[in-house]
Amino acid sequence: MSLTDVLIGRPLASSEDQEQRIGPSRGIPIFGLDALSSAAYGPEAALTILLPLGAAGVGYIVPLSGAIVALLVIVYFSYRQTIAAYPQGGGSYTVARQNLGERFGLLAGAALMIDYILNVAVGISAGVGALVSAVPSLQPYTLAFCLAILTILTIVNLRGLREAGAIFMAPTYLFVGTLLIVVAWGALETFLSGGHPHPMVPPPRAAGHAEAAVGVWLLLKAFASGCTALTGVEAVSNGVQAFREPVVKNARATLTAIIAILIVLLAGIAGLVRAYGIAATPPGEGGYQSVLSMLTAAVAGRSVFYGIAMASVLVVLCLSANTSFADFPRLCRVIALDEYLPRSFAHRGRRLVFSEGIWVLAILAAGLLILFGGVTDRLIPLFAVGAFLAFTLSQAGMVGHWRKNPGRGARQSMLVNGLGAVATGITVLVVLAAKFLEGAWVVVLLMPLMLLVMVAIHRHYRRVYQETRPIEHFLHGHPREPIVVIPVAQWTAIAQKALRFALTFATDVRLVHVECEDDPLVRDWESLVAAQVREAKLPMPKLVTIPSPYRTVIHNIVEHVLELERENPYRTIAVIVSNLVEKHWYHYFLHNQRAELLTALLLVKGEPRITIVNVPWFLKA
Amino acid sequence: MSLTDVLIGRPLASSEDQEQRIGPSRGIPIFGLDALSSAAYGPEAALTILLPLGAAGVGYIVPLSGAIVALLVIVYFSYRQTIAAYPQGGGSYTVARQNLGERFGLLAGAALMIDYILNVAVGISAGVGALVSAVPSLQPYTLAFCLAILTILTIVNLRGLREAGAIFMAPTYLFVGTLLIVVAWGALETFLSGGHPHPMVPPPRAAGHAEAAVGVWLLLKAFASGCTALTGVEAVSNGVQAFREPVVKNARATLTAIIAILIVLLAGIAGLVRAYGIAATPPGEGGYQSVLSMLTAAVAGRSVFYGIAMASVLVVLCLSANTSFADFPRLCRVIALDEYLPRSFAHRGRRLVFSEGIWVLAILAAGLLILFGGVTDRLIPLFAVGAFLAFTLSQAGMVGHWRKNPGRGARQSMLVNGLGAVATGITVLVVLAAKFLEGAWVVVLLMPLMLLVMVAIHRHYRRVYQETRPIEHFLHGHPREPIVVIPVAQWTAIAQKALRFALTFATDVRLVHVECEDDPLVRDWESLVAAQVREAKLPMPKLVTIPSPYRTVIHNIVEHVLELERENPYRTIAVIVSNLVEKHWYHYFLHNQRAELLTALLLVKGEPRITIVNVPWFLKA
Repeated sequence: MSLTDVLIGRPLASSEDQEQRIGPSRGIPIFGLDALSSAAYGPEAALTILLPLGAAGVGYIVPLSGAIVALLVIVYFSYRQTIAAYPQGGGSYTVARQNLGERFGLLAGAALMIDYILNVAVGISAGVGALVSAVPSLQPYTLAFCLAILTILTIVNLRGLREAGAIFMAPTYLFVGTLLIVVAWGALETFLSGGHPHPMVPPPRAAGHAEAAVGVWLLLKAFASGCTALTGVEAVSNGVQAFREPVVKNARATLTAIIAILIVLLAGIAGLVRAYGIAATPPGEGGYQSVLSMLTAAVAGRSVFYGIAMASVLVVLCLSANTSFADFPRLCRVIALDEYLPRSFAHRGRRLVFSEGIWVLAILAAGLLILFGGVTDRLIPLFAVGAFLAFTLSQAGMVGHWRKNPGRGARQSMLVNGLGAVATGITVLVVLAAKFLEGAWVVVLLMPLMLLVMVAIHRHYRRVYQETRPIEHFLHGHPREPIVVIPVAQWTAIAQKALRFALTFATDVRLVHVECEDDPLVRDWESLVAAQVREAKLPMPKLVTIPSPYRTVIHNIVEHVLELERENPYRTIAVIVSNLVEKHWYHYFLHNQRAELLTALLLVKGEPRITIVNVPWFLKA
Repeated sequence: MSLTDVLIGRPLASSEDQEQRIGPSRGIPIFGLDALSSAAYGPEAALTILLPLGAAGVGYIVPLSGAIVALLVIVYFSYRQTIAAYPQGGGSYTVARQNLGERFGLLAGAALMIDYILNVAVGISAGVGALVSAVPSLQPYTLAFCLAILTILTIVNLRGLREAGAIFMAPTYLFVGTLLIVVAWGALETFLSGGHPHPMVPPPRAAGHAEAAVGVWLLLKAFASGCTALTGVEAVSNGVQAFREPVVKNARATLTAIIAILIVLLAGIAGLVRAYGIAATPPGEGGYQSVLSMLTAAVAGRSVFYGIAMASVLVVLCLSANTSFADFPRLCRVIALDEYLPRSFAHRGRRLVFSEGIWVLAILAAGLLILFGGVTDRLIPLFAVGAFLAFTLSQAGMVGHWRKNPGRGARQSMLVNGLGAVATGITVLVVLAAKFLEGAWVVVLLMPLMLLVMVAIHRHYRRVYQETRPIEHFLHGHPREPIVVIPVAQWTAIAQKALRFALTFATDVRLVHVECEDDPLVRDWESLVAAQVREAKLPMPKLVTIPSPYRTVIHNIVEHVLELERENPYRTIAVIVSNLVEKHWYHYFLHNQRAELLTALLLVKGEPRITIVNVPWFLKA
C-alpha cells in the first residue's frame, strides 16, 4: 500500500460515482458550513459597527437582522429555482452566462473564485484567531496551526465527497444543536419572564451614553457587515451534481435545511441579544468577549454546556473553509468545461473529485496565509463583495431565464428574482461603499483582470481548435518515405542499434558524423558498415562527415538537418537520437547530454517536417 | 554581438591553437604567480613560528631559508626533467601513474586538485584580508570583494591563455621588479655599512627575551611553515602543452626564470631580515605589520616607492589564485583523458581552454569562500600537504622513470630525484605532523575518498565500453519492420499528421485510444479513417480501444505497449508521440503534458525494443 493510498485512499472507479454521491445529511456539512458558521460572526459584525451608539445600539439589531433575514429568504428562493433550472451545477456562473452573456458569467465566476479563495484564508485564520485568543500561549504558532488545518482540509477533500461529509458531520451538528438549544432555552426564559429574562451570567454593561447619533450611513454599514452572514448561500447551487438521485430534490432539501437553520439562528440570536441587553465589546481590546460567548453564558451559565458550545463554535469556524473546498473545484470545473480555464480543472482525480481545483485552492490559500503570517484581518474587507456580486448577477440572470421560459408561475418567479436582484444589487453598492478604501478596491481591480485572463484562455483554445481541426482528405498527395538521419559520434553498439532500426523501415539513411582527427569510422567504413549492409542486401546508408572548426557538435548537426529539410520540401526528416539512459542518477555527469540537447534544439527550430526518433540505450553499468 | 562575445570573446577555431600558445614572458605570470607570491608570505610564516624565541629567533631565518632554498633547487631539477620526459603535461599525476601505478598517480592528482581548490580560496582571501587590514572600513565587504575577484579571474581565464597572460603581466612584473629593487638596495646598504645597515624607518623592537628555548620541534614547525613558499613550483609541468614550440624549451625556460627569481627573493629577504633585525609582529594583534612592509620601509623609507611596492604585493596576493586556474583545468583534462574524471573536462571551450575545469574550480572556490564568509584562516592548515605529497610522488616516479630509461646522465638524475623524494617526503611528514590536528586530517581523509570516486568513474566508463562495444555481425537476423503505435485522444490534425507519417514507413500501424463516453473516433472510424486509407491504397491501421475504469490514460497506454512488446519478441515497437510545442511558455498550463509523461514513463520501463518517435506539432496560437 503506497503512501498515497494511506493518505487519500484507494482509487475509485468511474462506475463508483453514484455511491460517492451524497444526500442532505452529508450535504449540510459539506455545502453549509460556510453559511451556518456565519451565525457565529454575522450578528457580532453588525453589533460591532453599532458600538458608537452605546446601549441604544443594541435595539437596532432586531430590525437589521430582520432585513438580513428577508434578503436571505429572497436569495434562497432564487437559488432554489436555479437548482431546478440548471441541475448541471455551476450556479451563478451558469445562470449569468446563459442569460446575460459570456462576460457577466465570467464576472460572476471570477467574483466567486476570489471569494472562495479569501474564504479559506479568512475562515481558517478566524478559527485559529479564536483559538489563540482563548489560549494565548499558542500565539507564536498561529501560522503553523493555520497551515495544519489547511493541510487537513486538503487531504480530507482529496479523499472524496462522502468521506469529507462523514468527517464534518459531527462538528457541524454539534454546533447547530448547541446553538439551537441556546436559542430555544433563551426564548423560553424570555417568554416565562415576560420579555425580561434574568441572565445567569450578566453580560458586561454596555456604554450607556451614545458617542454618536444614529445615522443612515451607520445603519447601512452595520447592515453591510451583517450581510457577511449570507455568504455561502450559493454553495449548493454550484454543486448540484454532488447529490444522489433525485438530484434536484436532494439539493433543494439541503439548501432549505441550511437556510432554515440559519434563519432560526440569526433571528434567535438577534432577539435574545436585545432581550438580554448584550452589546458587542470592542474587538482587539482587553475584556473582549464574543457576542455568542456572552449570550451562551447569559442563557446557560458558564457550565459544561457552555464549554461544549464554545468548542464547537471554534471548530466550525476553522472548518468553514471547507465549503470553498467543495465549491471552488466544481466552479472551476464548470468554467473549464466551457474552456475559460485550463481543461485539467475538469479531470476527476483518483477519488472522483476535481483534484486540480483542490490543489490550486490549497496553494493559493496557503500563499495568502503565509503572506499575512496567519492573521488575515486585512483581507476581511475584500470579502463578501464577490459573493454579493454573484448573487446579483445570478438573480438578474434568473429574470432573463423566466422571460425566455414563460410558463406556470414564471411571472411570480420573475418578480421574486427581480426583487432579489435589486436588493442584492443595492447590498453590493453598500458593501463596496462601506469597504472600498479598506481594501474592496483590490477585488474591483482583480475581477476584470481575471476576466481578461479567462477570455484569453478561451481564445487560445479556440485558435488551437482551428489549427488542429482535422483536414478532409488527409492522405491526399501521400508523402514519400522519410529521410533518416543518424548522428553518430563513435561506432558503438548504440550506433549499430540505431542503424539496424533505421534499415527496418527506410531506404534513405544517412549517418551524420562530425569530423575528428584520425577518424576510425571514415577509415574503416567499408569493413564496419558497407560490407555488412551489402551482405544483408539492405539499402546502403550514406556517410556524411561535417567539419567542425570550432569544436561544436550539436550545432553542426542541427544545421545539417535544417539544410536537408530545406532541400527536400516534400519529405519528412526523421532524426534518430540515441538516448543513453543511465541506471543511477549520479551517472548523469559522466555522459554528455547531447541526445537531450539535440532534441531540444531541433524542437526549438519549429520545423514541422522534422521528427525525432528516440532509440533508447539502457546502461546496465 | 552577444553578451558571451563581449565577456569571453569570439569563438576561436581549433586551427588557432598555435597562436594561442605562450612563451616565457606570459608563462611567468600564468604559471608563476602562485610560486612568486609566496615570497610575500613564506618567510613571514616561518618568522611567526619563531616569535616565542624573541629577538634571537630572527637569527634562525637564514639557515631555515637556506634549507628551503636547497629543497627548492632539488624540486626544480626534478620538474625540469619531468617537463622533458612528459611533454604532454600532467606533471606529478602523469609521472606517478606511469612509474608507480594507477593508485599513486590518482593520489598525486587528488592531492593537487585539493591544493588548487584551496589555493584559490586561500589566495583570494589572503589578498582581500591584506586589503581590508589596510582599509578597515572595507571590512563588511570582505566576501563581496572575494567573489568579485573570483569572478574576474574566472572570466579572464575563460577568455583564453594569451589574454590571461597579457592581463597578468603588468602586476607580476611590477611585483617582481619592486621586490628585486628592495633586495638589491638593501644588500648594497648592508655591504656598504659592513653588515649593519641603518634602517630608514626602524622596525618595531622585537621582544628581547625568549619565552621559549629553541627546540628541534619548533624549528621543524618553522621549516614546515616556510615550505608553503614551494607550492606552485609544479605548475609549469602540468601545463607544458600551453607553450609554443619548442614546447619543452619554452616550458623549461619559464620554470627556470620563476625559480631563479624566487630563490633571489627568498634568500635576499632572509639575509636582509637578519641584517636589519626584523622580527615578525604577532598576527591579528594591534600594531601588526607584515615583514615585507617593515623590510621595505627599513630599506626605502615610507616613500612613494614603498606605496607602489605594497600595492603590488596586495594585487599579486589577490591574483596568486590564477595559477590554479591555469593548472586545475589542465590537470583535470589529463585525468579525464584517462577516464578517471567525467570526459567533459577534456573538451576545449570556445576560447580553446578547458572551460569545464574553470567553471568547476570557480564554483568550488566560491562555495568555500561563501562557507567561510571570505575569511579562510581555518583552511590554511589544509594547504601545502597536497603539494608536498605530489612533489614526493612525482620525484619517486622520476626515480622509476630513470630506472626504466637508463642512458647518459640517468644515474645522476636518479640520484637528484631520489634525494628530492626523500627530502620532500620528510617535509610531508613534518607538515602533516605540525598541522594534523589543526585541519590537515581533512585532506588525509579527502584524498582516498577522491581516489575511490575516480576509480569508480573509471570502472563505469570501462563497463560502458564493454556494453557498447560494436558487435561483429550487427545485421545478422535482420529484424522485421516495426509495429507502430499511435496513442490518439481526439481525431485532430495532430493525430492525422502522426498517422500520415506512420503510413509512410510502416504496414502494421495501431491507433490506440482510451475509451470514453460517446466516442466519435469509434463511431465514425469508417468515414474518418478507413475509407480514406482504402482510397489511398495504404495498409489499413487497426483501431485499439482500451477501457479506463479509473480515468487514467498514460498508464493504460504504457501497459498496452509493454504487452505488445512481450507478444512480439522480435520486433521493435515505435510509439508515435505528438508533442504539442507551445509558442509561449505560459501556455504550458493550458495543455496536458501527456506526450512528455508518456515518453518519460516508457523510458523508465527500460525496454530496449521500445522506441519513441516525436512528431512535433508547433502551435501558432
